[in-house]
Amino acid sequence: MRVLIVGAGAVGGFYGALLAKAGAEVELVCRSDFEVVKALGLRIKSPLGEWTFKPKTVYHPVEVQRCGVTSPDYVMVCTKVLPQIDRVALIREAVGPNTAIVLLQNGVEIEEEILAAFPNNELISGVAFVCLSRPAPGQVWHQAYGRLKLGVFPCGISPKVEALCRKFARAGIKAEASADIVAARWGKCVWNAAFNPLSVLSGGLTTDLLLTQETLIRALMAEVLRIAQAVGHPLPEELVEQNIESTRKMPPYKTSMLLDFEAGRPLETEAILGNAVRAAQREGVSVPHLESLYVLLKLCELKAQLDSRDLQP
Amino acid sequence: MRVLIVGAGAVGGFYGALLAKAGAEVELVCRSDFEVVKALGLRIKSPLGEWTFKPKTVYHPVEVQRCGVTSPDYVMVCTKVLPQIDRVALIREAVGPNTAIVLLQNGVEIEEEILAAFPNNELISGVAFVCLSRPAPGQVWHQAYGRLKLGVFPCGISPKVEALCRKFARAGIKAEASADIVAARWGKCVWNAAFNPLSVLSGGLTTDLLLTQETLIRALMAEVLRIAQAVGHPLPEELVEQNIESTRKMPPYKTSMLLDFEAGRPLETEAILGNAVRAAQREGVSVPHLESLYVLLKLCELKAQLDSRDLQP
Repeated sequence: MRVLIVGAGAVGGFYGALLAKAGAEVELVCRSDFEVVKALGLRIKSPLGEWTFKPKTVYHPVEVQRCGVTSPDYVMVCTKVLPQIDRVALIREAVGPNTAIVLLQNGVEIEEEILAAFPNNELISGVAFVCLSRPAPGQVWHQAYGRLKLGVFPCGISPKVEALCRKFARAGIKAEASADIVAARWGKCVWNAAFNPLSVLSGGLTTDLLLTQETLIRALMAEVLRIAQAVGHPLPEELVEQNIESTRKMPPYKTSMLLDFEAGRPLETEAILGNAVRAAQREGVSVPHLESLYVLLKLCELKAQLDSRDLQP
Repeated sequence: MRVLIVGAGAVGGFYGALLAKAGAEVELVCRSDFEVVKALGLRIKSPLGEWTFKPKTVYHPVEVQRCGVTSPDYVMVCTKVLPQIDRVALIREAVGPNTAIVLLQNGVEIEEEILAAFPNNELISGVAFVCLSRPAPGQVWHQAYGRLKLGVFPCGISPKVEALCRKFARAGIKAEASADIVAARWGKCVWNAAFNPLSVLSGGLTTDLLLTQETLIRALMAEVLRIAQAVGHPLPEELVEQNIESTRKMPPYKTSMLLDFEAGRPLETEAILGNAVRAAQREGVSVPHLESLYVLLKLCELKAQLDSRDLQP
């Protein structure tokens, strides 16, 4: 199994390292940590062990776009989903006729753009339930969880999905093949659309303190359920209660969006909230709480942008 | 005309100084700037002139509560409306049988508490449309506007209201007697409930940049109109358009709530947003955008409190 990981941040680095551990031939495309990862590989610290992952090849995106990559079995896209990242351009020269494209990314309704650009390739969509961080360039810290759901987009399970799940299982990660991966994506959005924006908009509160405003959190989650229902992927009502309960049991936690915001990195506002709100508008579903958060988050990003511009010499 | 101003911040200082200028006998109760104001009076800088206002007496709240004040014609309450400020206790020993109580304060539904404590006194409610700041202790800077609306609570106009309006007019300030002051309060809330919270929650944007998200602003304003309607004080629909238009014409402006937030002072979250949301809930009006902002503002205040506690030695 030949896998090209595109975007070797925490997610790409971690899951790539696991596939390599399970015997796959893994190559990486990475931009920001390119020099470090090429020289030293990626240092993984995890409950599954501590090891250094040395990919077969480390490419810079520019190399891939200029010279291409001999078409792998899987191109696994693990970048953030941001307006300024052109995912199609990033993978164009790496996708061969038999390559399956895997999106291991956050957000909802992030697949159509890729499907339109590569209509003849198998498209696998995936969601990760995992606590990862990148304490330094070339380092990945896997703190907890790690479970994956993978499925063909728009629906179904394929031999390539199953092979990938088996590979992850061999590395100690539960990867579940899901025949309705779109529902799984909306399911993850239930938590993300509530806690990620609230953590930023509150000025930086951890999950335990956000839970002091449970009514709003439940209202936000219920709105996500209503959108999922409207787009034909109904989720069980209990998901709200389950998400509240499991968050209550977590140690006080800074969301990934808050960590990004504090570090001055761009936020997945559009992928997580914007796409959800647009889906609601398209389907005629009223989501005033999500809309409020979406607008506020855009205003926060505008302010942060202006501030960072002021700081420039 | 004998007037006791309670809370000689920017609002109390400015309007007190104007009444004195017009010939009223004005005394002040002030806490934070007590020493400075007692020694030097208040320095007023305004398009109406620059002058020093020397009140007849400057009291500390403790003095008033212990010794009382010979009952004035008007006790004008100009403090912020905050859960930690007991307005009834502040004025208890200054209100005589013929004293009219004037509330020159922000927020909606802030009168009932005072009416219940002083059922036999005339209660005058007032809203100020004014840009004021306090650049230093004992200094008031009147930047623009200044118009007042005053009326008997819950409704009507009285000789005492009219006498007060005339006094302000003599000092160059347009003060309009309003037979439905509750509607005037909701009218001011249309702007306040939108721009004040947004300025804080965006991380500090000025009004011109908040206007980039006009749809949310209009939704918030429309919700305030719906509450006003439900509580029996309907406002014209055009108020939304007028508020947007006039804000567009203002120079980029930091709201008073933002200035308070940046200075670490408590916010009038409850008086402006909390009371509006509670009125909506009581009347069965759905106000999801206001609710979202209200909760977020409480979370922001919680975060600011925790941070300031961390900073304490």
